[in-house]
Amino acid sequence: MNTQDIPAYMTRVGEAARAAATRMAAASTSAKNRTLLALARLLRDNVAALDAANALDLNAAAANGLSGPMLDRLKLGAKVIATVAEGCEQLAAMPDPVGEITGVKRRPTGISVGQMRVPLGVFGMIYESRPNVTIEAASLAIKSGNACILRGGSEAIHSNLALWKLVQAALVEAGLPATAVQLVETTDRAAVGQLIAMPAFVDVIIPRGGKGLIERISAEAKVPVIKHLDGNCHTYIDAEVDIAQALVVTDNAKTQKYSPCNATESLLVHVNQATTFLPQIGAIFAAKGVEMRACPRAKAILSDVPGATVVDATEADWSEEYLAPVISVKVVDTLDEAIAHINRYSSHHTDAILTTNHPNAMRFLREVDSASVMVNASTRFADGFEYGLGAEIGISTDKFHARGPVGLEGLTSMKWVVLGQGEIRQ
Amino acid sequence: MNTQDIPAYMTRVGEAARAAATRMAAASTSAKNRTLLALARLLRDNVAALDAANALDLNAAAANGLSGPMLDRLKLGAKVIATVAEGCEQLAAMPDPVGEITGVKRRPTGISVGQMRVPLGVFGMIYESRPNVTIEAASLAIKSGNACILRGGSEAIHSNLALWKLVQAALVEAGLPATAVQLVETTDRAAVGQLIAMPAFVDVIIPRGGKGLIERISAEAKVPVIKHLDGNCHTYIDAEVDIAQALVVTDNAKTQKYSPCNATESLLVHVNQATTFLPQIGAIFAAKGVEMRACPRAKAILSDVPGATVVDATEADWSEEYLAPVISVKVVDTLDEAIAHINRYSSHHTDAILTTNHPNAMRFLREVDSASVMVNASTRFADGFEYGLGAEIGISTDKFHARGPVGLEGLTSMKWVVLGQGEIRQ
Repeated sequence: MNTQDIPAYMTRVGEAARAAATRMAAASTSAKNRTLLALARLLRDNVAALDAANALDLNAAAANGLSGPMLDRLKLGAKVIATVAEGCEQLAAMPDPVGEITGVKRRPTGISVGQMRVPLGVFGMIYESRPNVTIEAASLAIKSGNACILRGGSEAIHSNLALWKLVQAALVEAGLPATAVQLVETTDRAAVGQLIAMPAFVDVIIPRGGKGLIERISAEAKVPVIKHLDGNCHTYIDAEVDIAQALVVTDNAKTQKYSPCNATESLLVHVNQATTFLPQIGAIFAAKGVEMRACPRAKAILSDVPGATVVDATEADWSEEYLAPVISVKVVDTLDEAIAHINRYSSHHTDAILTTNHPNAMRFLREVDSASVMVNASTRFADGFEYGLGAEIGISTDKFHARGPVGLEGLTSMKWVVLGQGEIRQ
Repeated sequence: MNTQDIPAYMTRVGEAARAAATRMAAASTSAKNRTLLALARLLRDNVAALDAANALDLNAAAANGLSGPMLDRLKLGAKVIATVAEGCEQLAAMPDPVGEITGVKRRPTGISVGQMRVPLGVFGMIYESRPNVTIEAASLAIKSGNACILRGGSEAIHSNLALWKLVQAALVEAGLPATAVQLVETTDRAAVGQLIAMPAFVDVIIPRGGKGLIERISAEAKVPVIKHLDGNCHTYIDAEVDIAQALVVTDNAKTQKYSPCNATESLLVHVNQATTFLPQIGAIFAAKGVEMRACPRAKAILSDVPGATVVDATEADWSEEYLAPVISVKVVDTLDEAIAHINRYSSHHTDAILTTNHPNAMRFLREVDSASVMVNASTRFADGFEYGLGAEIGISTDKFHARGPVGLEGLTSMKWVVLGQGEIRQ
């Protein structure tokens, strides 16, 4: 397509997506699953061609001096392709969310009223360098009966174009419209501005990337945005707790991996457990080189731990998402103080209580206003795969529509269905 | 409160709402129900005082030359007060939506994952002259565990202030924060601009009023809007149909009341039924003075009906919400054409098929992309009370979050809950 005139180009893309969405909403479960299985096969059969396209991006990126981690994210290769192909097959095996009818109840007037799950329509996905997101987003769109418009990072354009060709081939093979999944074929940034401001063609925008990108898109979008800003996750050690278990879970929540958004960034400890728990977790953190930014009471205890790096926490530390071997630590006097602190400083992503006290567990579950609230588990579990969603298109830190990991259901909504026998309103 | 400095005033209102929302989210079902029952009692006990406040508004409105229907909407009186008091009692009798836990499933890792229904937080409600909306919105906020900020029409300010005092008294009597329901005490329009642009304090805006107001608010809001633009509802007479029943239902859908948004504005008739159905429904419409704006084929048939007013439909007619004794009429050749016409011209509010053919009914249900889709029932049923929601805060024509009548559940969302026994991520 001619991509010179961006507004005209994006309008054509939008119109095609809207038309395809109608066909995808009515598509049979069988056709959608056949598409996913064909896509898995095509991915495996075309590893060499995909690697060749990927090499163009990798060489350009290396020539432009991109860093090692950036090149890592950009790389496809047999292993990444096998993983996304398997993901397509897993989605094919999942129940179709579309058409589910729930809660049908007979009303006094005689009509039966319930709700039917239907696709949202068209979603726009804006993401950065990782080309496997192209397949993840396309496969979720296909299974959920939506059309999508994908705008990947410009540094991955050759890889994305090659992957997209396979998606289109799979759609056509199964008798579905190739335009159900479209890739923005230009790296011109003006296309993003258009994509987020076409309410006639796009129902929701899902950005994935740095906080700056997501804030900018949210501020400028003319359609709803499913957004994930940051993950300042808390683990709270209650007054009554299994200390041995709490040590294992807290260690896992912080140190199993530092970069994910569901890693714990702040540790709250009830004063009754502070002198028991803090020296032991402090020793674990010290051994792994985790810096502790502590309140005065926590610092007094942690400073005695051999080899520990303990500094004074500033006010800013309570809100910080470190994504690094750093954790803020605070001693609290009550469960109420812990809940109030979390509701004030958390990014509302994931927060956990470790406790043996049932009423406290239930109060924490109910009163902590976060997308995922956990009892006696590592915050690292907050993830679409771990929750059984099959795949996730993103994690929402918003309250509206979908909270937390967003899978197939988050790409749908419920319409009302009324089944009558000729009833009229009196 | 000092309302001179609007930004400072609205910030204080917003901060108080956010603080109250935390307490409302944790409020017991019993406290919320006691508030609603106290409010019903206070409303009934204060009819005279409410009428006196209402008289100030009515007199000012009459002096300003407001029209009869406007004065009607503004009027409280014993009957309106009895109705809203009864509404509070009905809400008290309904199950509490907050805290419902659904879909808890054990995962292979050992954790159990489910979802818990929680309040959205703070909603802002912007409405026009009818003061009973103050009680409807307040009572829905209380039962759903939200805080709300109400901005009623300036012409109803004395009535709204008097009603709000009773809401606050009921909250205090039940031990809940008076600030859970706040009324914007100034009629300065700048307050609306502030209310819709405080994402830190307001989670969602619900406007009720004319299309112009709602479009303006949607364009300018910095938070999600649950909006209802218009209701261009269709009734489609299928090829196989119970004609006697179809006549009764179509008549009801169009003529039972002309002003509601769920009244049918457009009639589609399958060509096989056109010569049978159209003359009969045409006679009913002619007798009631309903003007028919018809496609050429429909016009050829309807023009023979004695006393009928039949004119050529223009392209604009297919999109029109008349709210008047006018209906557009089109003959279609297939179910596909009917569905395509509806998906193109409908406002996605409510559309119905009248049919005896089961596959056609199921295709219509699935493929018509509207908030309410009906089989063999009058579109006039699209209503929160008729659907059993107890009450409705509005009707959404959006796809995101909530579609159609929005009741208690539409004012909540689902957070994830994870129940573990010390599990960690591998």
